[in-house]
Amino acid sequence: MTVPDRRYVIIFGCPDRTGIVARIATFLADAGGWIVEAAYHTDPDTGWFFTRQEVLAGSLPYGIAELRNRFGAVAGQLAVQSDWSITDTAERRRVVILVSKEGHCLYDLLGRVASGELDVDVSAVVGNHPDLAEVTRAHRIPFHHVPFPAGDPEEKAAAFGQLRQLVEASRPHAIVLARFMQILPTELCAQWTGRALNIHHSFLPSFVGARPYHQAHRRGVKLIGATCHYVTAELDAGPIVEQDVIRVGHGDSIADLVRKGRDIEKVVLARGLRWHLENRILVHGNKTVVF
Amino acid sequence: MTVPDRRYVIIFGCPDRTGIVARIATFLADAGGWIVEAAYHTDPDTGWFFTRQEVLAGSLPYGIAELRNRFGAVAGQLAVQSDWSITDTAERRRVVILVSKEGHCLYDLLGRVASGELDVDVSAVVGNHPDLAEVTRAHRIPFHHVPFPAGDPEEKAAAFGQLRQLVEASRPHAIVLARFMQILPTELCAQWTGRALNIHHSFLPSFVGARPYHQAHRRGVKLIGATCHYVTAELDAGPIVEQDVIRVGHGDSIADLVRKGRDIEKVVLARGLRWHLENRILVHGNKTVVF
Amino acid sequence: MTVPDRRYVIIFGCPDRTGIVARIATFLADAGGWIVEAAYHTDPDTGWFFTRQEVLAGSLPYGIAELRNRFGAVAGQLAVQSDWSITDTAERRRVVILVSKEGHCLYDLLGRVASGELDVDVSAVVGNHPDLAEVTRAHRIPFHHVPFPAGDPEEKAAAFGQLRQLVEASRPHAIVLARFMQILPTELCAQWTGRALNIHHSFLPSFVGARPYHQAHRRGVKLIGATCHYVTAELDAGPIVEQDVIRVGHGDSIADLVRKGRDIEKVVLARGLRWHLENRILVHGNKTVVF
Amino acid sequence: MTVPDRRYVIIFGCPDRTGIVARIATFLADAGGWIVEAAYHTDPDTGWFFTRQEVLAGSLPYGIAELRNRFGAVAGQLAVQSDWSITDTAERRRVVILVSKEGHCLYDLLGRVASGELDVDVSAVVGNHPDLAEVTRAHRIPFHHVPFPAGDPEEKAAAFGQLRQLVEASRPHAIVLARFMQILPTELCAQWTGRALNIHHSFLPSFVGARPYHQAHRRGVKLIGATCHYVTAELDAGPIVEQDVIRVGHGDSIADLVRKGRDIEKVVLARGLRWHLENRILVHGNKTVVF
Repeated sequence: MTVPDRRYVIIFGCPDRTGIVARIATFLADAGGWIVEAAYHTDPDTGWFFTRQEVLAGSLPYGIAELRNRFGAVAGQLAVQSDWSITDTAERRRVVILVSKEGHCLYDLLGRVASGELDVDVSAVVGNHPDLAEVTRAHRIPFHHVPFPAGDPEEKAAAFGQLRQLVEASRPHAIVLARFMQILPTELCAQWTGRALNIHHSFLPSFVGARPYHQAHRRGVKLIGATCHYVTAELDAGPIVEQDVIRVGHGDSIADLVRKGRDIEKVVLARGLRWHLENRILVHGNKTVVF
Repeated sequence: MTVPDRRYVIIFGCPDRTGIVARIATFLADAGGWIVEAAYHTDPDTGWFFTRQEVLAGSLPYGIAELRNRFGAVAGQLAVQSDWSITDTAERRRVVILVSKEGHCLYDLLGRVASGELDVDVSAVVGNHPDLAEVTRAHRIPFHHVPFPAGDPEEKAAAFGQLRQLVEASRPHAIVLARFMQILPTELCAQWTGRALNIHHSFLPSFVGARPYHQAHRRGVKLIGATCHYVTAELDAGPIVEQDVIRVGHGDSIADLVRKGRDIEKVVLARGLRWHLENRILVHGNKTVVF
Repeated sequence: MTVPDRRYVIIFGCPDRTGIVARIATFLADAGGWIVEAAYHTDPDTGWFFTRQEVLAGSLPYGIAELRNRFGAVAGQLAVQSDWSITDTAERRRVVILVSKEGHCLYDLLGRVASGELDVDVSAVVGNHPDLAEVTRAHRIPFHHVPFPAGDPEEKAAAFGQLRQLVEASRPHAIVLARFMQILPTELCAQWTGRALNIHHSFLPSFVGARPYHQAHRRGVKLIGATCHYVTAELDAGPIVEQDVIRVGHGDSIADLVRKGRDIEKVVLARGLRWHLENRILVHGNKTVVF
Repeated sequence: MTVPDRRYVIIFGCPDRTGIVARIATFLADAGGWIVEAAYHTDPDTGWFFTRQEVLAGSLPYGIAELRNRFGAVAGQLAVQSDWSITDTAERRRVVILVSKEGHCLYDLLGRVASGELDVDVSAVVGNHPDLAEVTRAHRIPFHHVPFPAGDPEEKAAAFGQLRQLVEASRPHAIVLARFMQILPTELCAQWTGRALNIHHSFLPSFVGARPYHQAHRRGVKLIGATCHYVTAELDAGPIVEQDVIRVGHGDSIADLVRKGRDIEKVVLARGLRWHLENRILVHGNKTVVF
């Protein structure tokens, strides 16, 4: 693995008007900033402009704090209302993974981390079942078992409180629901807005909720899919990040759908997580721009 | 185009038990029948057995009438309740196509017919708008314009009556709704059961009903699809024959989805129609076996 | 079909350096130019920078001639050596299509033109066989039959001379080899560089040359493909524009590969032609940037 | 994981003639055999007939030894020359995996084994580098490091001798070259015929040999692929078992191709291995039938 050049990633969005690109590009050019990657999009429905730019850190005469200061002034000139952020690719990303019993997404993510493909710190894995403790610890990652008793709302609330503490302890850039089979309470969804990624084992909006492969089998679809989306309070209805499908036929049992679907779930979640950590995903309303 | 060998296509279904394959295969072998293609499936949920066999017509010492006689006796021995049919690939298939204004599926089907890829007689094209009359007639196929006045239920019923007559006149093997934008009345659905194929411009069961690309755009999906299904009384809920998808992104407008989707609609409909005319599709409940 | 807003499409390439985007964007912003779409790329191997920008024609205070004048000055400041062009989406594109006997790509393109999806003038279709004359003329497009006698090099050269004249007569933006089964002589390749698009019925670089489906069948591949590429003097070795594949299996005969492959050929060629006519393809060495 | 019903898998091939299916099916029916899955194919080029049948073990009145005895007699009646085998799904499959430094395929396979998806014994992992020892041993699987010194042919031959011993020690049903970067000598290829599966990181027959992603990048293809094939003496030219592709673009560096390609390599190898262990692959000449 070669270490890629350190970069600052600028994300900016505001109501579209003439001259935004010119203003930002000139600001960067005046400072000697070398733009390595740039992408633009305007949403025609809302008239909102989006850009993402990667600048070589070493090409600027100042650091990220000063870049933020100066870019903030530019942003203020461009629009009264704007969304922007600047991140440093040298800052190591922290990820917390939530699991239940199904391990394929966890195995896949840990394999990517171990082989260096996914260059992040997995701060912790939290499971509402203990099944995946051993594989997690074999990767020298802390595993926390937080049981979620069925039935008693108070005990469930306490479990979510514990989950929240364990997650927040590492201030993660991403909270990955890797086939985590508990529905997050509204306040956790709100608190983790834009950071919590779920993998749903269907091609949304088809087959929301429980046992989507059973639903797919009953309907007789000829392709099954998986969807990576940001978690929101409404179940399986958050902004879609990535989807993919695989062909099935009349000879495939539900068990076959489950098995074939896993390969799609794994790659869809891994792609979504990578894009999220590279700050490639801009959420706008209930949709995503993926640069 | 070489003419393929003439074949008899045997479709048979009954409750599964030991010895069905042996009985049918022995019956054919005893007559010298050369099996060119054979497929089997048992649905584990219902315990129903399905088979499709293609036999070289010239390998049998008798014709299709006698084959039906004799096979009927075999079928009666195998099960009290069975579904079966024997068709002759030399019998030319007749197709009626229903259209509205969108022409891409019609152009595609007519091109396949003209180039000999789809070796069928298109008996007629019926449109509730006159837009596609010219292209149809350029292919020397009769075009009938049956206007469907909005609002008046009696006039609409009369129009459907006229449509029915035009369709039935050629006793078609397939009635293809090639982006026909009228909902068939229940009695027509019933009468055309297993013969009427629709192309819906979404990946069903997502986005049933009107303007599915608009729905898909609003939801922000990352793939759009098309579904070929048999028409039933419940809108867009009939047995699915074939589906496919194509990737879209945040930069795609609704017009882009419409354009990209057309290429999927065309091939999905053409594949579904081919399989239907080759007697490859066995409907069982609300699902299909595609051999 | 709604008419899209008239746009000027700016293509620019030069050795990468700091400030190119700023200079171009500022030039456009100063004139009030509204950028509707913008894309950038730098090839790390050659250090060459590419951009494509769509500007609303009505947002500029002057026409395309003056835009070219002024942009030329900007380009001169940015680099000693640069490639650039500015085209007007209101200028109707002219296309000449070359065919032999196989009609599926021609049918497909003519259907797209007739339905308004592909908004171009097909100036002429030229065939070395007469088979596709009728369908062409049914679309009210001139068809020219130019026979290519096997064997005699002089007669062949004369035929290519006639072909060249017929093609050049309409000064086409694109020359589409829609399954044209003659190898263009080197001087025609040179003269039509960057304008002649071929569809090859394999996933290049596999199965160059004659009868690629036969080659694919012999090798036992599990997917077959099609490749749209610019024509160069070396057979099937020009810059690749677009490719796609479809799954095949042991049950598929060569005839099945031919039939399944057609659906891929059609869409791959149609996509490549659309991108070419929208000035989305930038050729660099033997590779393409597709914006 | 539910344990699937124990089955006997019958593979049979011989020159095609009338009555083969009848003979086999009658033989099974007479013994009360319940056929769970059946597939047939005849290769039109060679006139060779293939079938694969899964029979519920419990439905037969005798065991596998007697089934082999009796089926052998049937096979002898059907053809002078035939290939057949009968295997028992209850016999646990043994797999040896060969690796070098790239770990993604190994991680993927071990994850599938650990989660129970791939229900096999990995008897050993042998690496010509020690890099993947730790992950292997974390799964409680023996890892053997066999260094292959560059240059000295005698030392290399000795290393291959050691490799052979380590592999043969467990009499494996499959020898998986999971990105093993040494070319097997001809005699090992011969000895492991039909058991050694390789994953090649290109869409064969494109980009045979070393550094296929570099070759693909240079050629400017728009899709990259992976191929699982049986190992033969000719490099990357053995019978193809499975292939798949993924889309790439001008913005993808070689490192991006390597990363994106991994996801294809993993699933293509896993699918090929599953089919091999389920006795679904019949090799005929240099092609495969995959039932």
